[in-house]
Amino acid sequence: MKRLSVLGSTGSVGEQTLAVAAAHPDRYAVAALAAGRRIAKLAEQVRAFRPAVVSVADGLGADELRERLGGDAPEILHGDAGLEAVATADADLVVAALVGAIGLAPTLAAIRAGRDVALANKEVMVMAGALVRREVAARGTTLLPVDSEHSAIFQALAGESQGAVAKLILTASGGPFRTWSAERIAKATVEEALNHPNWDMGPKITIDSASLMNKGLEVIEARWLFDVPPERVEVVVHPQSIIHSLVEFRDTSVMAQLGLPDMRVPIAVALAHPERLPLDVPRLDLAAIGRLDFETPDTKRFPCLQLAYDALGAHEAAPAVLNAANEVTVAAFLDGGMSFDRIAGVNADVLDRFTARGTDAALRDLDDVMEADAWARACARERLSAERGCA
Amino acid sequence: MKRLSVLGSTGSVGEQTLAVAAAHPDRYAVAALAAGRRIAKLAEQVRAFRPAVVSVADGLGADELRERLGGDAPEILHGDAGLEAVATADADLVVAALVGAIGLAPTLAAIRAGRDVALANKEVMVMAGALVRREVAARGTTLLPVDSEHSAIFQALAGESQGAVAKLILTASGGPFRTWSAERIAKATVEEALNHPNWDMGPKITIDSASLMNKGLEVIEARWLFDVPPERVEVVVHPQSIIHSLVEFRDTSVMAQLGLPDMRVPIAVALAHPERLPLDVPRLDLAAIGRLDFETPDTKRFPCLQLAYDALGAHEAAPAVLNAANEVTVAAFLDGGMSFDRIAGVNADVLDRFTARGTDAALRDLDDVMEADAWARACARERLSAERGCA
Repeated sequence: MKRLSVLGSTGSVGEQTLAVAAAHPDRYAVAALAAGRRIAKLAEQVRAFRPAVVSVADGLGADELRERLGGDAPEILHGDAGLEAVATADADLVVAALVGAIGLAPTLAAIRAGRDVALANKEVMVMAGALVRREVAARGTTLLPVDSEHSAIFQALAGESQGAVAKLILTASGGPFRTWSAERIAKATVEEALNHPNWDMGPKITIDSASLMNKGLEVIEARWLFDVPPERVEVVVHPQSIIHSLVEFRDTSVMAQLGLPDMRVPIAVALAHPERLPLDVPRLDLAAIGRLDFETPDTKRFPCLQLAYDALGAHEAAPAVLNAANEVTVAAFLDGGMSFDRIAGVNADVLDRFTARGTDAALRDLDDVMEADAWARACARERLSAERGCA
Repeated sequence: MKRLSVLGSTGSVGEQTLAVAAAHPDRYAVAALAAGRRIAKLAEQVRAFRPAVVSVADGLGADELRERLGGDAPEILHGDAGLEAVATADADLVVAALVGAIGLAPTLAAIRAGRDVALANKEVMVMAGALVRREVAARGTTLLPVDSEHSAIFQALAGESQGAVAKLILTASGGPFRTWSAERIAKATVEEALNHPNWDMGPKITIDSASLMNKGLEVIEARWLFDVPPERVEVVVHPQSIIHSLVEFRDTSVMAQLGLPDMRVPIAVALAHPERLPLDVPRLDLAAIGRLDFETPDTKRFPCLQLAYDALGAHEAAPAVLNAANEVTVAAFLDGGMSFDRIAGVNADVLDRFTARGTDAALRDLDDVMEADAWARACARERLSAERGCA
C-alpha cells in the first residue's frame, strides 16, 4: 500500500492522480491533500479518500471546508504552513501538482523530509533545478517526472547507467505556428496562438507551446531532472505527439516511449514505479495513425527555444529569470494589444540584462531564486510599459 | 573481462562480434571459436584473438588450420564434438551465430552447461523454442537476442516485470512486394524477390522477407524468447525499418528501440548487457529521415505470416515443420522454375498435413525436433516434385 500526499489535488493533474488511485484502492491510500480555493471539490475528495491532513489557500477556505465536512473533518490547515504540512506528512510519495512558483517551497520541504516526489509542477525544476538536484542528491530521494516528455525519458532510462546516455531527445509538436513564416508568426492573434493541435491545456502553457518556450522550459527541466549537460539535450519537432521523447545511448541505440496523449499514463507510471498499473485508457494503434513526422526545430522562427539554452549556459538563476519574464510577457500577450513576437523579444532582453550583470554564483537557497524571479518580473514589466532599461 | 565463445565466427554476425570485441580489448577476451570451411579467415582470427579451443567442420579443415598456424596453434577440434567443445568451453557468454539447424545441438549444450547465450541463430528458437525455453528456465541462464527486432524488444523490456507486458510488436519492412497486388506477387521473379529495400542479407532470408515468412519466424522466435503467448505477439509493417520493434505495457505505455540498420548495435547490446558500449557507428537523425510509416500486415497477400501463428497454435513441433518446409520451398524457388506463391502454398500444405496427424505431445528432445524437420522436408519435396500427398 503506497500512501500519497497530493499538492494541488483539485487541479487537472491532482484530480487525475486521485482517479488513478481510486481505480486501485488495494495499492494506494491518500495521506494528505492540499488545494487552493476549490473548496467544494476538495470536500468531495476528503469524503472519498479520507486523508489525515488537508490544507487550503487561506483561513476563509479552511472555515468553509470545516463547515462542509461537519464533525467528520480531518486536520485542516492553510497557507504556507499548510502546504508544508501536507508536503511532509507521513506518506511514501508526494505528488507535486501545484502550478507555478507556489510549489517550490513545499516540494523542497518534501525532498528535505526524504520523500520521493512525483513532479508535475514544472516551475520547480525550471526555477530552481540546480538547487533541487543538489537536495535530491543529498537526501537520496527519487524524482519521478509526470510531464509526458520527461516521463518518456524516465521510462527510456530504466535500467540504464548515467554513463551510457549520449543524449536526451525531447519531442515537440511544433505548435500551431509550425509551418508559418516568421512574418506571419510575428502578427499572430491570441486566438491563433491558443489553437494547439494535440493537447488541451490552459492558456499560459498553450501560448508557450506556440512560441516553443514550453519546449525550452522542458529542456531546462530535463537538464536538471536527469542531470545531463544542456548540450546533450536536443529537441526534435514531431507534429503527431505520439513519440513522447527519446534517449540515445552511446551504442547509438535509441529508446523511445510512445502513446496516445493522456496524462493518466505518465501519472500512473510515476505512482506505480517500478511496477506498471493496468490502465483502462485508449491504446496506441500505429497502423491506424499511419505516419509519424520529424523536423529540426527552427530557432530563428522560434527564438524562445534558443533562450532556454542561453539561460542554461549562464548563471544558475538565469532559467528563473527567463521563466518569470515569460510569465509576464505571455500574460501581456493574452491581455491583448501586444504582438506575438514581442514575447520572445522582451524575454531575450530581460535575460540579456540579467546576464550582463555578470554574477556567476550558484543558487544557495529559495531566496536567491525568488529574488531573481522578482527582478525579472519587474524588468519585464518595465520593458513592456515604458520600453526603458532595467537596473 | 568477459570471455566469449563464438559459434560461427567466420560468418557475418561472427565477424562483426569479433570486430566489436577487438574494439574493446579491455572488456572482451575470446575463449573459443567454431567455424565451418573458411579456414584462412579462421586462421587470421586465431592469430588475432588467441582462443584456447578452435573447431572446424571436418578433419581436412582441421589439418589445413594446423598447417596454417604452425607451432603456435590452439587445441583444434572438428565436427559435432568440436562444436560442443566450443559451446561448453570456459567462457562467460556463448555467441550462437551458426546458421540453420546445425546450431541447435551446440546451443542447447551451452545452455545445459549454464552458459549465457547471445543468440543470432534464429532456427534454435524457431525449431526448438519450447524445448530451449524449458532448458533456460531449468538452468537459470540468460538468452540475449542478437536479431535486431528481438534485441529491440529485449531493450524495451529492461527493468520491467513479465506481468506488465501487454504485447510485443515486431516491425516488418514489408519487403519488396509491400505495395504489390496478390496477382503480381504470385508471379514475382527471383530477381524481384531478392531486391530487399533496407537490409543487405543472404538470399534465403531475403526471400523470407519478401514472403513475410521471415517475420513469421520472428513471431515464433519472440514467442519463445520472451515467453509471451502468440496472441500477444503482433506485427506492424514499417517500411523504413527505423523502429526495430516495440513493447506495449498494461498501462498502455509503449517502449520502442530505434536506430539505423546496423547489426553491430544489437551485437554490442548482447555482449555488453546490462552495460552499453561506446560504438563508432552512424547515429540516427530522425529529422533527417523525416517520416516513419506504419501499416497493418496483409495476411491475404502474405499468407506465410499467418502460417507462423497457425504453427504456434498447433503441436510444439509444428514451427520446426513450417521452417523445414519453407527451407525446401525457398530453395526450389531460388533454383527457378517455380512461382513465388507456391512457397506459401506448399508450406501451408505441409503444415496442414502435419497437424492433421493429430499428435499433441510436447517436444521432449532434439530427436523429436529433427524427426519433424526430416518429415517436413521429405513431405515438401514430394509435394514439389509429384504434387502428391505425404504419409
